Amino acid sequence: MPNDSTSGRSWQARLSARPADLTVAYGESLSVDYRLYEQDIAGSIAHATMLREVGLISDGELGAIRDGLAAIRDEIAAGTFVFDLAQEDIHMAVETALIERTGDAGRKLHTARSRNDQVALDLRLWLRDRTDQMLALVTDLQRALLDQADRHAGVLMPAYTHLQRAQPLELAAYLLAFVEMLDRDAGRFADARRRINVCPLGAGAVAGTTLPIDRARTAELLGFEAIAASSIDAISERDVAAEFLFCCTITALHLSRWAEDGILHASGEFGFLVIDDAYCTSSSMMPQKRNPDLLELMRGKSAAVLGQLVGLLGLIKGLPLAYNRDLQEDKRLLFAAADTVGDSLRVAAAVVRHSRYDAERTGSAAGGGYSDATALAEYLVGKGVPFRRAHQIVGELVAAAEREGKPLAAMPLSALKAACPQIDKDVFEHLGAVNVVARYRSLGAAGGAPLVEQLARWRERLE
Amino acid sequence: MPNDSTSGRSWQARLSARPADLTVAYGESLSVDYRLYEQDIAGSIAHATMLREVGLISDGELGAIRDGLAAIRDEIAAGTFVFDLAQEDIHMAVETALIERTGDAGRKLHTARSRNDQVALDLRLWLRDRTDQMLALVTDLQRALLDQADRHAGVLMPAYTHLQRAQPLELAAYLLAFVEMLDRDAGRFADARRRINVCPLGAGAVAGTTLPIDRARTAELLGFEAIAASSIDAISERDVAAEFLFCCTITALHLSRWAEDGILHASGEFGFLVIDDAYCTSSSMMPQKRNPDLLELMRGKSAAVLGQLVGLLGLIKGLPLAYNRDLQEDKRLLFAAADTVGDSLRVAAAVVRHSRYDAERTGSAAGGGYSDATALAEYLVGKGVPFRRAHQIVGELVAAAEREGKPLAAMPLSALKAACPQIDKDVFEHLGAVNVVARYRSLGAAGGAPLVEQLARWRERLE
Amino acid sequence: MPNDSTSGRSWQARLSARPADLTVAYGESLSVDYRLYEQDIAGSIAHATMLREVGLISDGELGAIRDGLAAIRDEIAAGTFVFDLAQEDIHMAVETALIERTGDAGRKLHTARSRNDQVALDLRLWLRDRTDQMLALVTDLQRALLDQADRHAGVLMPAYTHLQRAQPLELAAYLLAFVEMLDRDAGRFADARRRINVCPLGAGAVAGTTLPIDRARTAELLGFEAIAASSIDAISERDVAAEFLFCCTITALHLSRWAEDGILHASGEFGFLVIDDAYCTSSSMMPQKRNPDLLELMRGKSAAVLGQLVGLLGLIKGLPLAYNRDLQEDKRLLFAAADTVGDSLRVAAAVVRHSRYDAERTGSAAGGGYSDATALAEYLVGKGVPFRRAHQIVGELVAAAEREGKPLAAMPLSALKAACPQIDKDVFEHLGAVNVVARYRSLGAAGGAPLVEQLARWRERLE
Amino acid sequence: MPNDSTSGRSWQARLSARPADLTVAYGESLSVDYRLYEQDIAGSIAHATMLREVGLISDGELGAIRDGLAAIRDEIAAGTFVFDLAQEDIHMAVETALIERTGDAGRKLHTARSRNDQVALDLRLWLRDRTDQMLALVTDLQRALLDQADRHAGVLMPAYTHLQRAQPLELAAYLLAFVEMLDRDAGRFADARRRINVCPLGAGAVAGTTLPIDRARTAELLGFEAIAASSIDAISERDVAAEFLFCCTITALHLSRWAEDGILHASGEFGFLVIDDAYCTSSSMMPQKRNPDLLELMRGKSAAVLGQLVGLLGLIKGLPLAYNRDLQEDKRLLFAAADTVGDSLRVAAAVVRHSRYDAERTGSAAGGGYSDATALAEYLVGKGVPFRRAHQIVGELVAAAEREGKPLAAMPLSALKAACPQIDKDVFEHLGAVNVVARYRSLGAAGGAPLVEQLARWRERLE
Repeated sequence: MPNDSTSGRSWQARLSARPADLTVAYGESLSVDYRLYEQDIAGSIAHATMLREVGLISDGELGAIRDGLAAIRDEIAAGTFVFDLAQEDIHMAVETALIERTGDAGRKLHTARSRNDQVALDLRLWLRDRTDQMLALVTDLQRALLDQADRHAGVLMPAYTHLQRAQPLELAAYLLAFVEMLDRDAGRFADARRRINVCPLGAGAVAGTTLPIDRARTAELLGFEAIAASSIDAISERDVAAEFLFCCTITALHLSRWAEDGILHASGEFGFLVIDDAYCTSSSMMPQKRNPDLLELMRGKSAAVLGQLVGLLGLIKGLPLAYNRDLQEDKRLLFAAADTVGDSLRVAAAVVRHSRYDAERTGSAAGGGYSDATALAEYLVGKGVPFRRAHQIVGELVAAAEREGKPLAAMPLSALKAACPQIDKDVFEHLGAVNVVARYRSLGAAGGAPLVEQLARWRERLE
Repeated sequence: MPNDSTSGRSWQARLSARPADLTVAYGESLSVDYRLYEQDIAGSIAHATMLREVGLISDGELGAIRDGLAAIRDEIAAGTFVFDLAQEDIHMAVETALIERTGDAGRKLHTARSRNDQVALDLRLWLRDRTDQMLALVTDLQRALLDQADRHAGVLMPAYTHLQRAQPLELAAYLLAFVEMLDRDAGRFADARRRINVCPLGAGAVAGTTLPIDRARTAELLGFEAIAASSIDAISERDVAAEFLFCCTITALHLSRWAEDGILHASGEFGFLVIDDAYCTSSSMMPQKRNPDLLELMRGKSAAVLGQLVGLLGLIKGLPLAYNRDLQEDKRLLFAAADTVGDSLRVAAAVVRHSRYDAERTGSAAGGGYSDATALAEYLVGKGVPFRRAHQIVGELVAAAEREGKPLAAMPLSALKAACPQIDKDVFEHLGAVNVVARYRSLGAAGGAPLVEQLARWRERLE
Repeated sequence: MPNDSTSGRSWQARLSARPADLTVAYGESLSVDYRLYEQDIAGSIAHATMLREVGLISDGELGAIRDGLAAIRDEIAAGTFVFDLAQEDIHMAVETALIERTGDAGRKLHTARSRNDQVALDLRLWLRDRTDQMLALVTDLQRALLDQADRHAGVLMPAYTHLQRAQPLELAAYLLAFVEMLDRDAGRFADARRRINVCPLGAGAVAGTTLPIDRARTAELLGFEAIAASSIDAISERDVAAEFLFCCTITALHLSRWAEDGILHASGEFGFLVIDDAYCTSSSMMPQKRNPDLLELMRGKSAAVLGQLVGLLGLIKGLPLAYNRDLQEDKRLLFAAADTVGDSLRVAAAVVRHSRYDAERTGSAAGGGYSDATALAEYLVGKGVPFRRAHQIVGELVAAAEREGKPLAAMPLSALKAACPQIDKDVFEHLGAVNVVARYRSLGAAGGAPLVEQLARWRERLE
Repeated sequence: MPNDSTSGRSWQARLSARPADLTVAYGESLSVDYRLYEQDIAGSIAHATMLREVGLISDGELGAIRDGLAAIRDEIAAGTFVFDLAQEDIHMAVETALIERTGDAGRKLHTARSRNDQVALDLRLWLRDRTDQMLALVTDLQRALLDQADRHAGVLMPAYTHLQRAQPLELAAYLLAFVEMLDRDAGRFADARRRINVCPLGAGAVAGTTLPIDRARTAELLGFEAIAASSIDAISERDVAAEFLFCCTITALHLSRWAEDGILHASGEFGFLVIDDAYCTSSSMMPQKRNPDLLELMRGKSAAVLGQLVGLLGLIKGLPLAYNRDLQEDKRLLFAAADTVGDSLRVAAAVVRHSRYDAERTGSAAGGGYSDATALAEYLVGKGVPFRRAHQIVGELVAAAEREGKPLAAMPLSALKAACPQIDKDVFEHLGAVNVVARYRSLGAAGGAPLVEQLARWRERLE
């Protein structure tokens, strides 16, 4: 009966010396992977159920294992289970506790199983859970953005390119741009889920087993759609984990872009966005500040997620087949990235719900910076002027208007006509942000009828 | 009529000063994006066709544009087109040449289009082409691996974990592990292709256009399955490019793992793999060397691809909406990664086709290192010994055998029985690599009947 | 006499088959490392000189080698040298040409040398050159910034934290912040130079040589300060290359921060910075735009440099000793990063010299946003109020002033006194940006006497 | 008196709403930066001492602050201090506790200080400590390697290039290659330390202060060598932190290379290295395994460190001046990397001290693979054969010997002479690993007299 702190290590019999303290401290993953206890126990119960069905354990043994594992799960959930880092990882911690409680029944649990396929299984179950969670969080943020668009109907804002005002748009169109990005993010998570949802259990250490196990049965019990077809690949690869982490990274970068815009919009110079005080902080020394800290943190944390992706990809690179202990480090990276991106999605949705745009500031900016120049060039195209000539004419008109410090709509018709005889007084129905936005016609455009269509489509999809 | 080297810059009329040489040299992308000329011209022809159909240009103008562009394409293909870096990028180089040749017809081509949606379109068309190419190259490498497996039927090799011999396997199973990895790679490319195959043309600079264009028509003409639903998003996002680059990276890492194994297997210490001289190099100073340089390069180049992914993701992070010139740098990264991974896939397939395993060396290694220990433990399980006890017993037996310098199969039955009375003389049918491999029963195992099934499935899929 | 396209490969005698075309194409580095021809030839001349001095070649042979190499160098410089990719790399291309021209003299050049130490040498020489170039470019940019500071004496601007106006500063102080960053960058390059300037020549393939060479002599001829002490390490390590690339990366990130600020400052919302038209571009569709493209490109290119660092570090990770062909990929990464950062430094200096701040806009902003709140709190501290109470009082005053839409300096004394009886009418000498900036007293502060000191110090250092 | 959980937040007075729970949870850094408590308190004591000296606080206040902080430090060290995450970070946690205990004295501590310079100070103090620790750990590993070299005097091993046996070497030379790498690592840490050891305290929030503080005094009290010259730069830059992290990364990669070699050397195929059982683990399913897990973990963990570097560099990129909250994330990355690399250095030294090379296996390998071929070519050079011809002749001889399955030393003299008439019977004094190693003459070579010199130099340096 194990009664010392190293008893959890399964390989004790083989090695003639006790592990050095440093070996234990450097090698243990329990302080990280204890989070997998639910997955580990669910996997073990499915495995034991199958072992019973193929005759490798008895009914009584299955009962003892099932009850023992359920009790351990409850204790861990309640915080009463005592972990010992010398047990290395959650898998050995649980199994050791089970053996202490059930004796030989517990000693049979690991039949036809290795830590290699057990780890791979737990990781897949965790990835599946977190993918589903990401999908829900992405949808929630999309809904928050759509609601925000609805709350700001008719609000105008400049579209920026090169951080210069380019064309006027309706704020709703700006917000839907993020809804679209998030939609691709969700699509990627959904695609990753198909590759995640493949059961590695039964691959054993690397080559499978000579025992008559039923992999289809455990896969079914655990809700998997498919079974990993190669035992070697099943225990040695982390590409689906990397894919999940990439999905997290792209989502984090989208949030970083959204945060960057929010930080700009909340600055005194833009003055577009007012975030509720409950979602701001101030300064320890400068009491007047209302800082968009949450957005800055979101932007900063996205870099850490990118770093975690690099960590995992760098770890995989150049590893010989099959399992190498390097892979143990995957979990620290995955857990951190999933936590960060999950939290960031929640925070983003909260900020969206607790902030508002200042329609006066955004509207005024939308009309500035000659953002109707493109529409004027298109007006000239409608009058038969080749686009490149129209572009040149408008360029000169803008330069002239800028010299006079006037918007295009304030230029006298005579001056406009002098630049291009095709210009007529109907030109004033084409100038100014309100006119421009109302005239957008192309599918997907940032205002007018095309925007109404986009909003309707998203309301339907997200209702 | 443009007659100087800066005439290609569309924004000349607006700025009062000529660009400094440094501005031109630092800003030009033509030396990189000239590769997009086919995509650019195909996109322009579709755009012009649509412009004709909606009445924005005449039949004659369409004809002139179509013929002019076709001639330019042929000249570029033939190497007779003269590029001028002052034209900044392939889009302006082609348009400038068209205007020189067709006058006002050419000046109308850019109607209702911006470089922003034009660049986004060309990039999508290029990504679609390269994705299809990757899919074909991955399949070719899978076929090469399957053929290699067929050529080595019955060859045994150790499975390694921790680079220690773990269990015996059939070489074909080892090769199929890479076929499986590549299959997920192909799945990722195929998923990315759906997100790539969405048409951004018509998004204009950022907000769409007031002109009556038909985006569905250009999308149809260019073979797209969908239309980008938000103009802002369409021109500002590069997530599908990043996804393609991630797919390249994971494939590169899989090739790096394969290369690492090949380098090990080709070493004098392993002596498993003999690569044909045509796919090796030697040393400038040590004439006896037969170096697996191609595999080392493949491993090394995979790091550069990871770096390119970091470059693109780092570039996207924190950019405000919408288009920013930073995005211009995407192409250098994408082109380099796609070239490297395409070449690496070709080289890998060639090496697979021009190398062979030394069955004597691999078979002898498969039998060494007590790789039948697990099978012995499973034998004991079959005799009713709880797995953890079996594991401990076998551990002690291995330690004893190692002290005597004997394989398990050479231990006398009496010694085996002394360790565990349940052991009987049938144990010898379970020891030794040949016996073990033949007894694998679990789905996906690395030998025996499960391997036969895997091979049959892959032959059918890849035929 | 070699007369076919593969004759440059030194290892031909050993391998029974000709290299496949794919092998040549994938393995050649000549298309990248041809840039090292000056370093390669300088190294070879030093090596030959030493070989003569220790008696391994004759005077006549040395003369033939020296003349032959000089002629080859001139031809490469003139563009008349014909490269053949089948020669793999610049080292074989030069040696093959030398042998063609000088026969046995050329065949003796590689005595006691391997491509491994030759490559390491060329790379060190190149790194040393480029480090010196970086140091000069950094200094030039520092000078440009200092001149810009001198041109804007007395101009006020807000200091931002969280992109919110925090405290007023003098523009010169803002510019000196970048001078400081660049100074650390220069310090890092200088430190790296010491580690770079160590001669690997004579390390041979990996273990040195049995021939009586004089490594101290070649090191001296090539201007090295030290000799690599371990032959194995000398040919297998790339950490000094990685250090150079890290120095490039940090510099690139500093430029990226500077560019980010410039982009913000050039926006319509800030309106602080006017970049000369010669260093801007406009839009193909929106003629009114004056885009800070060079700054955006600088920001974007910095990500690629970070990616190149990751590429090199990822490449090194996990390589066994000693030389592995993976290392060949180092040059592509190093060349690209050095080119980018060198160009970016030049462009930044040019933009600094060709742009100006709008003192009216920056000054007006400096006075906004209650940026004198901290100074008010410090005024209260001077009156004996504990800082945390002062902080709280000022916070409430700012909130009150904000509700009334007034700056602090426009609040009536009575209102101020009501909030804190210690406030007296001298408070108005402490409010407003001009007063605040003039009162800065702490060493290194962003205005007043401390700034005068900083400027004087930098003028002396950079004169 | 603060009596609720949000009282630690200094900006409460300014914002009209209480922070949302999500804001607190996402924004707090206390769970990470509590580790800085010693640095924070040391900095505060120095700051208060200076405040007393310049007359901003009284003797009694200084005493109260000093005693209060000392008590808090002791409580944190003893684990009895109660942290509240609502206090956001260690700085507010300590200050809040101090104010609770000392009232107005505590409220004066933050006079002329901001969290921005406080955080920058604490980070510099921490970086300085950890740099010193790294320097000590690197030296310890160097000593362990030197001792290992001494324990294996005269042991031969092959030098590998391309993982093929290249030349014979003495094991000590192999080990010294790592000592050299580590020496450059130490040099980088020492260089970084100079840039780290610069005091930012007194920079205030960003622009300095109007109060009459004495920055030189606090710098002196805290042992800094210099004072940050620009307040803006002092609080906004993290390049020295990035440099420290880069130094960690390069060290981690060197350890990864060492680990990779150890894993290879411990494999059954090489059989060179035997790691003590106390520093190995075995398998849960395959009891015969003796896995070099610590080395695999070290290799894997190095990737995470690279990822942390990417995280920090990516975080810095593109941030506007000056302080942005993104920077808060620096500590998580720095702490993790420093912990990992510190632990890895300790583990590496322990493994070096608890492992041995099998001289029979390494010696036998050193003699295999025609590793004396280079020495034979050099013998021919000594006989006047031009090196390239010698190289070709030896290449043919090796091919012939390989066909006969003999080492070069076993070839009959007649066969050697037939290949090259200059060969004489003294050739046999040049063949075989023992002869080759003894004949190495070049400075830094991997055996013979040059190695004796290297060992003597290192013994002197590391004694």
